[in-house]
Amino acid sequence: MKPLILVTNDDGIFAPGIKALIEVARELGEVVVVAPNSPQSGQGHAITLTEPLRLHKVDVFGDIPAYECSGTPVDCVKLAKQVILKNRKVDLCVSGINHGSNASINIIYSGTMSAAMEASIEGIPSIGFSHLDYSFEADFSAAKHYAKKIIEHTLKEGMGDAKLLNVNIPNLPLTEIKGVKVCRQAEGTWNEEFVESKDPRGQSYYWMTGSFSLHTDDKNTDIWALQNNYISVVPSKHDLTDHHALISVTEMESSVNQS
Amino acid sequence: MKPLILVTNDDGIFAPGIKALIEVARELGEVVVVAPNSPQSGQGHAITLTEPLRLHKVDVFGDIPAYECSGTPVDCVKLAKQVILKNRKVDLCVSGINHGSNASINIIYSGTMSAAMEASIEGIPSIGFSHLDYSFEADFSAAKHYAKKIIEHTLKEGMGDAKLLNVNIPNLPLTEIKGVKVCRQAEGTWNEEFVESKDPRGQSYYWMTGSFSLHTDDKNTDIWALQNNYISVVPSKHDLTDHHALISVTEMESSVNQS
Repeated sequence: MKPLILVTNDDGIFAPGIKALIEVARELGEVVVVAPNSPQSGQGHAITLTEPLRLHKVDVFGDIPAYECSGTPVDCVKLAKQVILKNRKVDLCVSGINHGSNASINIIYSGTMSAAMEASIEGIPSIGFSHLDYSFEADFSAAKHYAKKIIEHTLKEGMGDAKLLNVNIPNLPLTEIKGVKVCRQAEGTWNEEFVESKDPRGQSYYWMTGSFSLHTDDKNTDIWALQNNYISVVPSKHDLTDHHALISVTEMESSVNQS
Repeated sequence: MKPLILVTNDDGIFAPGIKALIEVARELGEVVVVAPNSPQSGQGHAITLTEPLRLHKVDVFGDIPAYECSGTPVDCVKLAKQVILKNRKVDLCVSGINHGSNASINIIYSGTMSAAMEASIEGIPSIGFSHLDYSFEADFSAAKHYAKKIIEHTLKEGMGDAKLLNVNIPNLPLTEIKGVKVCRQAEGTWNEEFVESKDPRGQSYYWMTGSFSLHTDDKNTDIWALQNNYISVVPSKHDLTDHHALISVTEMESSVNQS
């Protein structure tokens, strides 16, 4: 029996990146697509609690069953599991291919990675794919080549102790990509700037923009891998506990509890 | 000089929980408030990229400067740092007091914790406070008592190696709370159900609901602490790398790169 692969994204069901990912996934398994009906970049792990969600079957990928959803990428995964697949066992969830990087701190803001993480929370092995080209006309041929190899490997061999992989693909032709590099999330931040302006009614508004700062020159990071023509693969997780800090924080107990 | 404390939340600037937190914070430092103008529960780490943001000064907390923002909790922290405080050094960010638990997997979906995490990403020590009572009429007296002690300790002694604390307070009178317990995030998931119905125009919609499942009976978790009348304190972080899984995933490199 073919493995069941759930495909989602955050750029919306009409983005070229999801089409590329479906073309790969359909060669390797039975594919079901549930994706947002509009771009949802930067939605992070948002879910829709106070509004109803709409879900419609759409005919955009030929014989592949596909549904568009009015909610966030995480909503899509939850609806896919409960409403569309009625808790059938999903063998793999793939999210993307995102238009733009989700390396380093971008994982936190990313709807693509949050959708994949949601599936992993629900026990489904998951991979988020992102391509370092924001444009609608991005060339996905190298990304597809490696996405296929990574998905094939995962379906056959699993993903070790991991449940979730964050895969970023440099914007290079296939011949210039050196291969995949398993590595960690680089320390980095966005330096926001807010452009202040006035709307046509004279009311002030702010619009977010910014630039990325890297805070490490370690070689074992996703940013280093991408800068050196590798595809970065970061095993990621939803346990946000800072285990390293646990002992040092525990001294608070005596101080707070005694006074 | 008094420490500068940034206060935010996800229930909105008019929620009782943020008022309680401001009452505590103003006794311990100079306070600036930047919070959403409407409830933003479940917004996770969403940011607003494709729309303008509105920011207005509001007079709701007497002499405390307070601003309401049209964006998400994370947007509030970014605007506070860049636009309101113009990169003045913030000594502590406190977020909450949230109406409802952010223990276990809830941290991932929580706007309260995402706001605190955003501040910690930007180098500001941060604490998210949540109270296990969803109601608007929640009694915050015990929560305030402990929030004050925790903030006082943090301003004086720091937070060890941590940059971010996830504090949850059981819904109990002060005399029944046994103190704080530093612990880890419990493994748990939400089992979603979607209520399907029709709107007044006859169109189908789905509305998310669900129940929480705990997947561990370990004693060193936030859920155990709360069930046993402790306040849980989980040091948390934004490095999502699954460091434990790195080695096992690395075997993918040879397989994918050679073929």
